[in-house]
Amino acid sequence: MILDAISKPSDLKRLSITQLKELCAELRNEIVRIVYKNGGHLGSNLGSVELIVAAHYVFDIECDKFIFDVGHQSYAHKLLTGRRELMENLRTVEGAAGFPDPSESKYDHFIAGHASTSLSAALGIAKARDLAGLNYKVLSILGDGSLSGGMIYEAMNNAAGTSNFIVILNDNQMSISESVGAMRRYLSKLLASRGGLSFRRMISRLLSVLPRRLSKQIETFVKGIMSAIYGNNIFEEFGFQYIGAIDGHNLEELIKVFENVRDVATYKPVLIHTLTEKGKGCPEAEHDATKLHGLDKSKGNRFADVFGKTIVRLAERDSKIVCITAAMKTGTGLANFAIAFPERFFDVGIAEEHAVTFAAGLATQGFKPFVCIYSTFLQRAFDQIFHDVVLQNLPVRFVVDKAGFPGNDGKTHAGLYDVSLLQNFPNFTIMSPSSRMECERMVEFMANCDNAPSAIRFPKAEATDYDVECGDATKSRVVAEGSRVLIISTGALLEEVLKAVEISGTTPTMIDARFIQPFDFATFYRYAKTHEKIIVLEEGVWGGVSNVILQGILDDGQMHLFPKLHFLTASKKPVVHASRTEQLHVSQLSAEALAKALIE
Amino acid sequence: MILDAISKPSDLKRLSITQLKELCAELRNEIVRIVYKNGGHLGSNLGSVELIVAAHYVFDIECDKFIFDVGHQSYAHKLLTGRRELMENLRTVEGAAGFPDPSESKYDHFIAGHASTSLSAALGIAKARDLAGLNYKVLSILGDGSLSGGMIYEAMNNAAGTSNFIVILNDNQMSISESVGAMRRYLSKLLASRGGLSFRRMISRLLSVLPRRLSKQIETFVKGIMSAIYGNNIFEEFGFQYIGAIDGHNLEELIKVFENVRDVATYKPVLIHTLTEKGKGCPEAEHDATKLHGLDKSKGNRFADVFGKTIVRLAERDSKIVCITAAMKTGTGLANFAIAFPERFFDVGIAEEHAVTFAAGLATQGFKPFVCIYSTFLQRAFDQIFHDVVLQNLPVRFVVDKAGFPGNDGKTHAGLYDVSLLQNFPNFTIMSPSSRMECERMVEFMANCDNAPSAIRFPKAEATDYDVECGDATKSRVVAEGSRVLIISTGALLEEVLKAVEISGTTPTMIDARFIQPFDFATFYRYAKTHEKIIVLEEGVWGGVSNVILQGILDDGQMHLFPKLHFLTASKKPVVHASRTEQLHVSQLSAEALAKALIE
Repeated sequence: MILDAISKPSDLKRLSITQLKELCAELRNEIVRIVYKNGGHLGSNLGSVELIVAAHYVFDIECDKFIFDVGHQSYAHKLLTGRRELMENLRTVEGAAGFPDPSESKYDHFIAGHASTSLSAALGIAKARDLAGLNYKVLSILGDGSLSGGMIYEAMNNAAGTSNFIVILNDNQMSISESVGAMRRYLSKLLASRGGLSFRRMISRLLSVLPRRLSKQIETFVKGIMSAIYGNNIFEEFGFQYIGAIDGHNLEELIKVFENVRDVATYKPVLIHTLTEKGKGCPEAEHDATKLHGLDKSKGNRFADVFGKTIVRLAERDSKIVCITAAMKTGTGLANFAIAFPERFFDVGIAEEHAVTFAAGLATQGFKPFVCIYSTFLQRAFDQIFHDVVLQNLPVRFVVDKAGFPGNDGKTHAGLYDVSLLQNFPNFTIMSPSSRMECERMVEFMANCDNAPSAIRFPKAEATDYDVECGDATKSRVVAEGSRVLIISTGALLEEVLKAVEISGTTPTMIDARFIQPFDFATFYRYAKTHEKIIVLEEGVWGGVSNVILQGILDDGQMHLFPKLHFLTASKKPVVHASRTEQLHVSQLSAEALAKALIE
Repeated sequence: MILDAISKPSDLKRLSITQLKELCAELRNEIVRIVYKNGGHLGSNLGSVELIVAAHYVFDIECDKFIFDVGHQSYAHKLLTGRRELMENLRTVEGAAGFPDPSESKYDHFIAGHASTSLSAALGIAKARDLAGLNYKVLSILGDGSLSGGMIYEAMNNAAGTSNFIVILNDNQMSISESVGAMRRYLSKLLASRGGLSFRRMISRLLSVLPRRLSKQIETFVKGIMSAIYGNNIFEEFGFQYIGAIDGHNLEELIKVFENVRDVATYKPVLIHTLTEKGKGCPEAEHDATKLHGLDKSKGNRFADVFGKTIVRLAERDSKIVCITAAMKTGTGLANFAIAFPERFFDVGIAEEHAVTFAAGLATQGFKPFVCIYSTFLQRAFDQIFHDVVLQNLPVRFVVDKAGFPGNDGKTHAGLYDVSLLQNFPNFTIMSPSSRMECERMVEFMANCDNAPSAIRFPKAEATDYDVECGDATKSRVVAEGSRVLIISTGALLEEVLKAVEISGTTPTMIDARFIQPFDFATFYRYAKTHEKIIVLEEGVWGGVSNVILQGILDDGQMHLFPKLHFLTASKKPVVHASRTEQLHVSQLSAEALAKALIE
């Protein structure tokens, strides 16, 4: 394999075009093999192979800096920068992270798990370079989906005049679900005007030989004509030189354009618009939209699926129910809702801030918005939840998916903060279901929760069928009465508790809290006083459930309970990418760890 | 006064143009008088008088909905909607809020204290209207400064095709400091092409009488020619019909344009670009940039001023220090830094998310970025702090100004969450200074804190000169040794404690914690065990300092201290606009309330 001969990135520069093409094919095979083995993102990584090879070929990776956006495009880059062994165990404890990570390689300069950050980071690096009097190039490699996130515009607004700053727009014409909105249509329009490139080039060459004053006048005139013929260009209005659209799989063309851009002493930032195919080279991935984005091995009975079925059922008889997501339609279980109620479904793109305030607007008019977002991305909208939802006490419903340990997606996707964030707000119901039936009941509860905001949180995990007579569904459920030890769990952790009790052969009292806020203190106190030890489990950082319980105890003057209390929470340290079970184990929250603790 | 004759909004519709102009003059006088009496925002409110009068005149405010962005433009609207009495006591407990507030009037439809939210909220309302089969108009009144915030682009990306959706862009050519970046330059360019409007109008009329297919072709052609002559138009690319720029103080022209827009059965959203002068009609405000934005009565020795002086001093001998703010240059005390080190100062506009990730980029290259943002706006960047700063453990320095009670700015500006948010992160130093000298020391500490993120938080308050021998400045300071009661305070609350002790004549032990994280548990335990009662004071919601202390106590097995502990924190309920002292008092944190508690 040619790949075997690349021990350091510069080795690639010695290859011929034919060899580079062969290298691309090898990288594709490697990516498919590794992803089928470990899971991960297939489509975007296959689509960006030529882009990355060409960039490695043209730029000097030892000093120029590549900043990936989201990083779903970085596998080829990782394979070319001495991480082939790590990639064998991609997304596992022993292997490489699924995203760029400076702690993994000196060729990764910035972390990238959340979208639309790369331009800001790259701009910071470019300004640092200028202040330090250095002159390397900073490249941002950006997917078109990231253009739906507002941060990109904040950065573009500040980028004008920055030299040696190059944005490679990898336009595969879809984001996680599909890119939505005006920007997508706009890019398509630009694609329809590809003929412009050669004309532009010709004009540039012509201008370079004319006197400066004259050339400036002609340039203005020509730009006007170009606009008339090829349409307007947003990127140029933001002060970028726009080049495109070019074929992102044509290695010769990519190299030629990159070389031009590299060698021109640029006086302003450049955006190179490349057109790629998600899943390129893997027929299966090219045609299967789900496989294109990320591969995982769900059995189709995740909490998100339960939510998805329930919300369709409820929406059939309640025309006020609307659903909003931020490019997470399939992930959050909304695919069927989107088909059944297209006019009540809103995918706003990777735009969590807008999603929340938009939902608040809907709520002011008596609608029942369900905002479905992964826990880690909901962090983007903390201020909108505070300012637009909580201060107006609007009944926006939050469906917080992938809440808890992120599994193999790793630290950037940790869903461990949502309870800590949301418990700051009064009048805000927070629930977590332990089973399929609890999940259904809670979604029904939310549909009727018209006076204040509410949230349901659950991990990316299968919902068990486990259930018992529920009693008052808004109170904690006593799962089993035992003695000595009282275990309070929230959400899916109940499964770990039940297994731990079985393994350990002990007989603790088990309570499924159901409602994190308002917490059922009556039930808690009733059992707390008759038990020697109270263990509270939380799939989140310290400051969520623990905070709610401690504040209640202090407010109620029940301080005598403190010596009995033991909180088991996730560590505040970044999570290592591994399976959810392994991550639970590290925080002593797995069945095995709990069983051991119970025996002791 | 004509204003006296307006008891309900529709009364205004009966006035002649001459009377409307007189009304504008009266509103200006009222605004100036009220703001000079109560403080508040002068410039934007004076600049938007004609806009609001014309909008009230043309639209039907009983069913059409006006959504303000930020709301610095809403005073005239408030005066016209039955709130003249409330406005007399603007920003005080008895009076009107400084921002739109649905709980204050049925003519306010959405809260607006943070920027760039109006388009998202308005779009939610418009979609709700369409789903409900209604047909009122939704107007967003947007300042040009808000265009630097990414949320606006997220909303524009989703707005195409929405009918009866009108954005009035109030372009006064500056935001809080001054609008920055490419969008500002772009707007200026549009302003240079005002002749286009009448040409556009003529063409539109011509097209309306031609067969549809033909008119479509001509429209495309004409649009191309227009682009060539007048430049490109970003708003049109986002699917808006652009009208502008028109004179925002010319009442006749405003009314004519608004009537046109109202009556055309729009098939897409419309953006009306109006040009206004901040402070219009008040010569003093027109020429004084500080007065233009907000009036307050600072004596020039605020914590922010102390920070501002200190950072200039440090930057003189440390070329790695750079400062970033998000349109809060003067407020955060950076005016002198910006003059002294223009190349190391970055005002990124109202773009907190970008500000933080941009700073993280700078930090990766060995620079020492100080990000200076008000506590309430830092909430916007929680995810960027997590993802781009904390996960990479980058030494970004956060200067969290206006942390604590917001005073008369009211609930939207509450700075009560920053500690609760930042304490989630390991390795993140959080400090709060009790005096001028502590503030200086802490900023010096941050300048040398190169291995991890750090933050300093202080309220919008005067820094006292109080100081004693400091000992180890990274440990808690024992202000006075007493008996029975131990008081732990953070930051400026020490002043309240000292006064309370004087008033009450008691002799508690007083500790100024200085570092919230890492908290000095050694000193705490030493005194905690010899005192009967421990009072912890926090100018923030439960879950900040309290969380840090409780976790430490549990980790250290010091649960026997719990019965002694009393936490005094801000309530989680929205803050009522009043003075900071009044707000402290409501939460039992004022000197008077503390004195009473100490006596008891």
